Amino acid sequence: MAPHGEGSDASVEAMVAQVEKHPISSILIIIAMQTEALPVVNKFQLIENPHSSFPKGVPWIHYHGAYKDIIINLVWPGKDLTFGVDSVGTISASLVTYASIQALQPDLIINAGTAGGFKEKGAAIGDVCLVSHVAFHDRRIPIPVFDLYGVGLRQTYSTPNLLKALNLKTGKLSTGDSLDMSPHDEASIAANDATVKDMEGAAVAYVAELLKVPAIFVKAVTDIVDGEKPTAEEFLQNLAAVTATLEEVVTQVIDFISGKCLPEL
Amino acid sequence: MAPHGEGSDASVEAMVAQVEKHPISSILIIIAMQTEALPVVNKFQLIENPHSSFPKGVPWIHYHGAYKDIIINLVWPGKDLTFGVDSVGTISASLVTYASIQALQPDLIINAGTAGGFKEKGAAIGDVCLVSHVAFHDRRIPIPVFDLYGVGLRQTYSTPNLLKALNLKTGKLSTGDSLDMSPHDEASIAANDATVKDMEGAAVAYVAELLKVPAIFVKAVTDIVDGEKPTAEEFLQNLAAVTATLEEVVTQVIDFISGKCLPEL
Repeated sequence: MAPHGEGSDASVEAMVAQVEKHPISSILIIIAMQTEALPVVNKFQLIENPHSSFPKGVPWIHYHGAYKDIIINLVWPGKDLTFGVDSVGTISASLVTYASIQALQPDLIINAGTAGGFKEKGAAIGDVCLVSHVAFHDRRIPIPVFDLYGVGLRQTYSTPNLLKALNLKTGKLSTGDSLDMSPHDEASIAANDATVKDMEGAAVAYVAELLKVPAIFVKAVTDIVDGEKPTAEEFLQNLAAVTATLEEVVTQVIDFISGKCLPEL
Repeated sequence: MAPHGEGSDASVEAMVAQVEKHPISSILIIIAMQTEALPVVNKFQLIENPHSSFPKGVPWIHYHGAYKDIIINLVWPGKDLTFGVDSVGTISASLVTYASIQALQPDLIINAGTAGGFKEKGAAIGDVCLVSHVAFHDRRIPIPVFDLYGVGLRQTYSTPNLLKALNLKTGKLSTGDSLDMSPHDEASIAANDATVKDMEGAAVAYVAELLKVPAIFVKAVTDIVDGEKPTAEEFLQNLAAVTATLEEVVTQVIDFISGKCLPEL
């Protein structure tokens, strides 16, 4: 068991052991919302795959295309079949990450999306954060060891050269299934030392680790959680502008990755 | 979109439309904890399938066997690879439900497990509840329609004859990833009108609906949430005795199912 403060390294080692010596040839971008996904789809002229290997009836959408020497797969969990809204949150993110890895066997996963930021930790609207660690803030299981499993602290795949080249901010990400933040969530987020807060990252990281695929997390700040404005209002207000910034950074990440092997990131 | 108070019926109809006219030949029992699973495994002399179709490296365990005219599959998500505890909660439950349906194509899913009960709603330690509706209590998304998606209220597959024959209690189940209950959770659980509270049910229901497999939920009460004793203490104290009761009821359910078609349940 990994010490609480340091995260789980075992699987990162397993990933590194699996790293192939050839340049990255296939990536999987997981994005939760259509508004976040479409700028990237358009930028890389990705097309929807009508013959995806996903089961019949699921709303999950697979876009794909080639850019330089990389096959880009982008998966968006689609609109909920009952309610018609984006299938946000950890359950959909886990399922599409699992099914996409099985179908596409990517070299690297990029989970890109919007996030709430904490100004106390230096975050500002429009910041893009390359995440160093992920954890959950709404899985409280007060039984020894189950408590650590609930928090699920994980180091992300380390990309020091990417971080330096793109001059991105870095910080820890805390994930939960609520857009708002209860006092219990707030305490857990503080314990997780999080700069940003989202609704999918730690779930994507969990599945990526389970299936031994390196994953990185690019999160763009749409709202300041510890600021004056209500989260939902601020989130909707900034969503379009911030997703444009997110697309720019995802493009920079892909340009940087192109032609490189995993250990060079 | 379904009205908030009534749950989503569309998929239940789809399930019923898919119902085959032959007797149920294969069931999938999803159980989150080893302590809950082993009494059922032993009762039906299920054996572990060393060649399960699950991906290499995942801790998920598939037990199977035959009883009367039914193939029984039991899937337990296994011990977390990092922390060594049972992989409880909605993410693991979603993943194993998805992967097991894909691999085993069951006629019916039974999600069996322990739960917290609310004495205000008539629950007592050792009660076994056949669940009528499921919903989430820790997915708060205060944006119109996303709020309903977050709650994810669903009717379970209706089995009036089973309920009557076994003389079980019935009630609504609320699911969240915490063993404890925050004030925010409490308000949501009250809004969900829940008699029992668990950490997997609504996630299993979500995936079962996505893949159009009827699912029922058998939950045995290990602790009284609105009682005097701390949940974790009471849960651990009653776990062994209540899982024995759970096994007895699961056996009764399987005996009842045997030889029947879905619409006869």
